[in-house]
Amino acid sequence: MVSNRGPVSFSHGPGGELVPRRGAGGLVSSIGPLLRDTGATWMAAAMTDADREAAGAGVVEAEGFRFRSLDLDPVSFAQYYDVVANATLWFLYHGLADAARRPRYDHRWHEAWDGYRRVNEAFARAVVEEAPDGAVVLVQDYHLVLVGRWLAAERPDLRAVHFHHTPFCDPVALRALPDAVADELLAAASAYTACGFHARRWADRFAACAEARLGGAPPTFVAPIAPDPDDLAEVAASGACAEALARLERSLDGRRLILRVDRLELSKNLLRGFWAFDELLEHHPDLRGEVTFVALCYPSRESLAEYQAYRLEVEAVADLVNRRWGRPGWTPLVLDTADDFASSVAALRRYDVLLVNPVRDGLNLVAKEGAMLNEHQGAVVLSTEAGVFDELGGAALAVNPYDVSATAEALADALALGPAERARRAEALRAAAGARTPRDWLEDQLRAAGLSTSAVT
Amino acid sequence: MVSNRGPVSFSHGPGGELVPRRGAGGLVSSIGPLLRDTGATWMAAAMTDADREAAGAGVVEAEGFRFRSLDLDPVSFAQYYDVVANATLWFLYHGLADAARRPRYDHRWHEAWDGYRRVNEAFARAVVEEAPDGAVVLVQDYHLVLVGRWLAAERPDLRAVHFHHTPFCDPVALRALPDAVADELLAAASAYTACGFHARRWADRFAACAEARLGGAPPTFVAPIAPDPDDLAEVAASGACAEALARLERSLDGRRLILRVDRLELSKNLLRGFWAFDELLEHHPDLRGEVTFVALCYPSRESLAEYQAYRLEVEAVADLVNRRWGRPGWTPLVLDTADDFASSVAALRRYDVLLVNPVRDGLNLVAKEGAMLNEHQGAVVLSTEAGVFDELGGAALAVNPYDVSATAEALADALALGPAERARRAEALRAAAGARTPRDWLEDQLRAAGLSTSAVT
Repeated sequence: MVSNRGPVSFSHGPGGELVPRRGAGGLVSSIGPLLRDTGATWMAAAMTDADREAAGAGVVEAEGFRFRSLDLDPVSFAQYYDVVANATLWFLYHGLADAARRPRYDHRWHEAWDGYRRVNEAFARAVVEEAPDGAVVLVQDYHLVLVGRWLAAERPDLRAVHFHHTPFCDPVALRALPDAVADELLAAASAYTACGFHARRWADRFAACAEARLGGAPPTFVAPIAPDPDDLAEVAASGACAEALARLERSLDGRRLILRVDRLELSKNLLRGFWAFDELLEHHPDLRGEVTFVALCYPSRESLAEYQAYRLEVEAVADLVNRRWGRPGWTPLVLDTADDFASSVAALRRYDVLLVNPVRDGLNLVAKEGAMLNEHQGAVVLSTEAGVFDELGGAALAVNPYDVSATAEALADALALGPAERARRAEALRAAAGARTPRDWLEDQLRAAGLSTSAVT
Repeated sequence: MVSNRGPVSFSHGPGGELVPRRGAGGLVSSIGPLLRDTGATWMAAAMTDADREAAGAGVVEAEGFRFRSLDLDPVSFAQYYDVVANATLWFLYHGLADAARRPRYDHRWHEAWDGYRRVNEAFARAVVEEAPDGAVVLVQDYHLVLVGRWLAAERPDLRAVHFHHTPFCDPVALRALPDAVADELLAAASAYTACGFHARRWADRFAACAEARLGGAPPTFVAPIAPDPDDLAEVAASGACAEALARLERSLDGRRLILRVDRLELSKNLLRGFWAFDELLEHHPDLRGEVTFVALCYPSRESLAEYQAYRLEVEAVADLVNRRWGRPGWTPLVLDTADDFASSVAALRRYDVLLVNPVRDGLNLVAKEGAMLNEHQGAVVLSTEAGVFDELGGAALAVNPYDVSATAEALADALALGPAERARRAEALRAAAGARTPRDWLEDQLRAAGLSTSAVT
């Protein structure tokens, strides 16, 4: 397993010794348990000074993992992670570019591209060194797609699969990359045995890009990831979650709850979600004072100017909605930027309506988590542009995420559903969200690599 | 002929009487002469109070045209022109949307859509009233595409053709329109006998959108427009142009000239053009003091906040480049926002390198005008994303407009071309730009309508 973030992170103990800890992050929490004690090796970037120290030891056994941390030059890492992955490719694949201004591929950007290449090559070298003959290599996400190029050249015995956790863009949008960069990314992706995506549309767009630029595409597969139901149940049963739920109930004071839970991220479409709530209150006076919109939006990528600016806008629109409609005893829109998973789970148990309206999203795990956790026969208003729409769309209320008025009406419709219809939809959502597990996702990758899945599962 | 702007505009004479004048605008100047004295009727929106007064008279004969001015409700007109056409569809078709923020289809926008529909219907009603049996109707541009819907329903005897002067977007980008709006636009376009575009790629994208949403597309045709060579020659031979050229030569003082001539418009990619010049000077010290970049960029759509913000950014980057590289006696980047056609023609006669780097452009007439007018064997650095690239690309230096470094290198390459190569390219550009005339463009539309072109030409 090759990913940017690893399953183990180190710190220094009181005597200066290296102390391993379980790593954070969505991929690690859902897939970590499946790979622990299997003999699989996981490679990831060193994040802390202690990680960098551990990197010197090569593969170590820690927390049940065989783990190798890579000590990467900090300048190259920033170029790879901030400039190319987060500020360029993320925006491109999510359709977030502001074409008149950004991206701007000047010589600093092209230098950053060299840094992206160096980090990918360092990952590839480590795999080339460590992988046993004929091993399956699962390379995670758009950060590391170039790894496939060196693996194909130097270790043709390996069966390497790449998985994009993001959406992918269409061939017209891809023209906004420098030509050689687009070709290099697609050629590297094509060097894998197969490329996986969370939804058919991303796989199709990727294949169309490869066809358009390279004249052919590698095999693709679709394997939506899923939350671990046992993990969710454990958090839901925790005392912290019970306390958070009690606090939430007190603050709601009997009102109905519209909820969103997101990273504070441009693709999540927070602004239009808030404008839709504003329009809901404007057009449905009966709902004023009767419904609260709780937005749990934890900050992300705060080093990027785009995210700083977006956060200010999000806060300003939330204030505007509250100044417009608030009254003593009722804050219409509660924007909470604390990152607290137990509180998120509590709110997901409680919502009447969950709003998931990204302009584009590789999958959107929150929609599945909500469907699995909710105890109020809650409805889901779901963007057609989220990958998870393919799985949950039939039971959700569909919205075009650009259409603020349509989103407001979908929220109104969701609140107006009768009990039987709510129950029917909630049951269908629960069934659809629980249809796959993290193990299914992992096995799909192994199958795409040509491995009999009985080998590890 | 049906277009937003007409070939005639009225003012009030000293006695209060209506005085007709030749209208302005690219379409009118290139096509006006061909339709004058042909008996064709031209319909356009009233722009002035006098136009509105003239509208009451129905079809009038003025300046050689049979002309009907339409008196449109000002609120509806602003909704149609500013909100829907310029601030929404223009951005969509040019790929300029900032997905995290705009467009935002709230209830004000949906009201504006009704205004767009009303104005289109008013145009359609006028055509329904005036058009002789079996007439050919040429409807110009994305402002008026809905007209086709009423013509098809109420006057099936007419042969109506629509021509999009803008690019068109791909099916993925079209998802950023409200679903019903996208369907209505495409259904109306499909009601024409044929839909025309300046380049094959826009026709193909339009057809792909119609296929994806409606299951089928109307016939399309490709008919790039062209400047009128006689018009250009007349301006080039004028005293005003000679004076402007003399002023330009004095200011250049023997230096080489990189030129751009554009509306001050987000799709024209002024910012990256200026950054490319900055990088050119940074990486080619020998060019400092030896080359001047003149940017003739006349303001446009100044009532839209996006354009106001963009102008400030453009001015700020120009200042930055001049502060960085300027020295006494040499201003590296001259940004001139005066709208003076004779000065533009003078500069087009004189350039060593013409930079045409739009992020997306339906055609780009300036590239053709430059190729036809230039007297210095000037090179053209041309965006692959301009429709005119299909005609001039073979003789120009191609650039990906997002790639600032590649643009800087293309400018350096253009300045470094040897005399024979410059002459060869300039000749090829001249031939390609002069290969079509406005008459060809008009005849292509008549042919698309199924009319024998001998009827009017």
